[in-house]
Amino acid sequence: METNIEQKVKRERWSNEFSEWYNEMIELAGIQDKRYPVKGMNVWLPYGLRIMRNIENFIHDEMRRTGHDEVLFPALIPETEFEKEAEHIAGFHGEVLWVTHAGERPLDVRLILRPTSETAMYPMFNLWIRSHADLPFKVYQIVNVYRYETKHTRPLIRVREISRFFESHTAHDNFEDAERQIKEDLEIFDNLAKKLALPYIVSKRPDWDKFPGAFYSLGAEVIMPDGRTLQIGTMHNYKQNFAKAYEITYEKEDGTHDYVHQTTFGMSERLLAAVMAVHGDDNGLVLPPTIAPIQVVIVPIPMKDSPYDVNAYAKEIAEELKRAGIRVHVDDREEIRPGRKFYDWEIKGVPLRIEVGPRDVESKKAVLARRDTFEKFTVEREKIVEEVRKTLDAIMENLYARAKEFLESHIKRVDTIEEAKQLFEDRRGVVELPWCGEESCGVEMEEILDASMLGIPYPEETAKIEGKKCAHCGKEAKYIARFARTY
Amino acid sequence: METNIEQKVKRERWSNEFSEWYNEMIELAGIQDKRYPVKGMNVWLPYGLRIMRNIENFIHDEMRRTGHDEVLFPALIPETEFEKEAEHIAGFHGEVLWVTHAGERPLDVRLILRPTSETAMYPMFNLWIRSHADLPFKVYQIVNVYRYETKHTRPLIRVREISRFFESHTAHDNFEDAERQIKEDLEIFDNLAKKLALPYIVSKRPDWDKFPGAFYSLGAEVIMPDGRTLQIGTMHNYKQNFAKAYEITYEKEDGTHDYVHQTTFGMSERLLAAVMAVHGDDNGLVLPPTIAPIQVVIVPIPMKDSPYDVNAYAKEIAEELKRAGIRVHVDDREEIRPGRKFYDWEIKGVPLRIEVGPRDVESKKAVLARRDTFEKFTVEREKIVEEVRKTLDAIMENLYARAKEFLESHIKRVDTIEEAKQLFEDRRGVVELPWCGEESCGVEMEEILDASMLGIPYPEETAKIEGKKCAHCGKEAKYIARFARTY
Repeated sequence: METNIEQKVKRERWSNEFSEWYNEMIELAGIQDKRYPVKGMNVWLPYGLRIMRNIENFIHDEMRRTGHDEVLFPALIPETEFEKEAEHIAGFHGEVLWVTHAGERPLDVRLILRPTSETAMYPMFNLWIRSHADLPFKVYQIVNVYRYETKHTRPLIRVREISRFFESHTAHDNFEDAERQIKEDLEIFDNLAKKLALPYIVSKRPDWDKFPGAFYSLGAEVIMPDGRTLQIGTMHNYKQNFAKAYEITYEKEDGTHDYVHQTTFGMSERLLAAVMAVHGDDNGLVLPPTIAPIQVVIVPIPMKDSPYDVNAYAKEIAEELKRAGIRVHVDDREEIRPGRKFYDWEIKGVPLRIEVGPRDVESKKAVLARRDTFEKFTVEREKIVEEVRKTLDAIMENLYARAKEFLESHIKRVDTIEEAKQLFEDRRGVVELPWCGEESCGVEMEEILDASMLGIPYPEETAKIEGKKCAHCGKEAKYIARFARTY
Repeated sequence: METNIEQKVKRERWSNEFSEWYNEMIELAGIQDKRYPVKGMNVWLPYGLRIMRNIENFIHDEMRRTGHDEVLFPALIPETEFEKEAEHIAGFHGEVLWVTHAGERPLDVRLILRPTSETAMYPMFNLWIRSHADLPFKVYQIVNVYRYETKHTRPLIRVREISRFFESHTAHDNFEDAERQIKEDLEIFDNLAKKLALPYIVSKRPDWDKFPGAFYSLGAEVIMPDGRTLQIGTMHNYKQNFAKAYEITYEKEDGTHDYVHQTTFGMSERLLAAVMAVHGDDNGLVLPPTIAPIQVVIVPIPMKDSPYDVNAYAKEIAEELKRAGIRVHVDDREEIRPGRKFYDWEIKGVPLRIEVGPRDVESKKAVLARRDTFEKFTVEREKIVEEVRKTLDAIMENLYARAKEFLESHIKRVDTIEEAKQLFEDRRGVVELPWCGEESCGVEMEEILDASMLGIPYPEETAKIEGKKCAHCGKEAKYIARFARTY
């Protein structure tokens, strides 16, 4: 057993190291360049963007599957529209960027750069939605949004320009149908998370932390290597709140009119941050094969005076893999030693490496090296497609399984604040406590724990609360509340 | 022969009608909604966006083919970076949107919303490009850009937010390699234009109309139905102009340093405007099959008391076409009459309609109706894939051929200003005139003709100018200059 002091030192190093590791990997793996001359706004590099596009392709697929239409709204919103919903403006007013001039001339109506698109979209929903036949109405877009963060910024995680922001917006003829939509959003999110091999938890946010203007908000989180949580998806039921502010009504079958019910669902480039952090290791990224721009890299290892042409052999294998629909790259750069190539592709997280030397050509074999386990094994040349497919599947499963284990081992349910405090001191992660449901109690617990309340597990677990007392006030507990230090 | 007066009336009606037709089609075909509450910023509707995405897929393909990497830069540029190149800022200063505040606080350094990305990218090129081994350096992005147009705005054509702006930026180690890049850009553009069935002309812009900061600019134009030209592509050779302003140098093989040579290539959602305008007719859009979201719409025509299931027959055909990689949709909406369906899909420009009634089911046939020629013919059920493929190819060819004929018949070369004036009065289009090459002459000719000089034909036609006199000053002509009324 380590002593508490040893543990503490280790934990702090670990935590610092993760932050350093992350910043280094953003750069070394070619994800983004942070040197753009506006703080919190970064440049997407080709490799990072290719990964993100692969993630987005899965989002587009899911949207098509569920009948959401893609739209594209302007990034600028007139002040007059932005100010129609009181809670919403209160939530965003402090961090919006204002466009005030065109050339030298001040604008008649100032414009904001969207921090999210409710106030851009809903004046149009007002025009588009006429009758019950138009409902449910489901659209989405992936766009750049702007939030002038005053906190420490971090690429993909906390930025002033979120350049890959996904938002779907729906309208329904009643609360139940909106609830069905939230369920569909959760299903979409689950499908996507599986493609990224990301296990996660969903919590219903406490009232003081819900989306500005929402009736309730759900948040999906992963746990990062330093034990802090990262929100990577949110679903909101707005009830008729925005519909009333923007006068979005529809004619019912009986001829009367009512306000629509609305929901939204949001994700962003944080998905990539989660993939990097959850799967990465000391050698660099470890990309799930599903989204890796290069699934297999082939490194020919030539030997002087050998009669065997390893480059030709590598290309032949590559062609066969390509025909089988596998994204493959042959690294035949001259004057760069194989060891250096291994190092480069490990940083970039290519899931599988194939090494071919003269002996492999001779014996009609190839060496496969897994990025996730560093396992190396020799396969028959004629079985290469089959072996590669099998190995990519195995990598996918292993990434998910080990991430799941990490997640589960970092969620602890306890009964008292003291136990919770101790957990946050020993190791970070998610701590669950019984809670009476009062905001004052919840906020005080946040302060004592120096952590945020993520909310209550969703779907709600009513059965397990019976007989528990609120960890702060001692009254009967109504909920299990999750706390975590968050990104 | 029509009289001059008749011609004039017709021409005016034609011109007015085109503008009305275009605005109506933007709305009726579901391309964009113009009612967004900021002038010159429009909402992309699902159908329009699907067409645009198909166009962009061809652009991405061409970029991959030619080794351009996709990047994504922030939309905001600090004033300090924006102001480094004098001509560039002079060209854009009057129409940039300024972000001056975050929440209530004024920003230390004001930001502009990119009107184009030279001033965002080149500070990073300065960091990225080190040696001759990094060259040629080729990147591109498709992003939203902002130009506060004071002229009359028009969807896709003249807007304050260009939401689908393509820009590629390259750096080279000498002028010749930059020139090779311009040739490659022209080849890319030509491949794309063929996919859109768009014949076009390329002109080298006069000095007073080149891109701010460019050494020279090329522009590619189509001729719209009203005879005005629309610029849909531009290529610029910057020489070392921006490289000097942004200190983009590289180490040569001999160890000395030099500034890079740069080029850019730009396109936008105007490509879609050109497709709409050039191919459309009184019944609506006519989309080239290459980019049509729906290439074939099948309309079942049920008959009461018929024993034949036309819907099942339609779906069976649809499945077969889908398997063959054809984008097909069955319009089996109930309570909407076939005639109304025909009308809807004609407006949306679906290239091919298949009608199936009980008699077709019985005789194992189907009726094909071409959108471009309105031709209808019956085909054997078992030959349907083959017939559809053949017909889609024929539509593609016909669209190109008739657009080419229109283009060529609207370019006239004459020797005198009087002839040119008469041409602009009789009919619009492009008029070519001999020109001495002096800016003063060129600008005066623009004024007299009430037209813009597009520039000189590119590649240059030196041979045909011999012996010609400048149409304005009478001195020896150095160039053929093209004039047109432009969008």
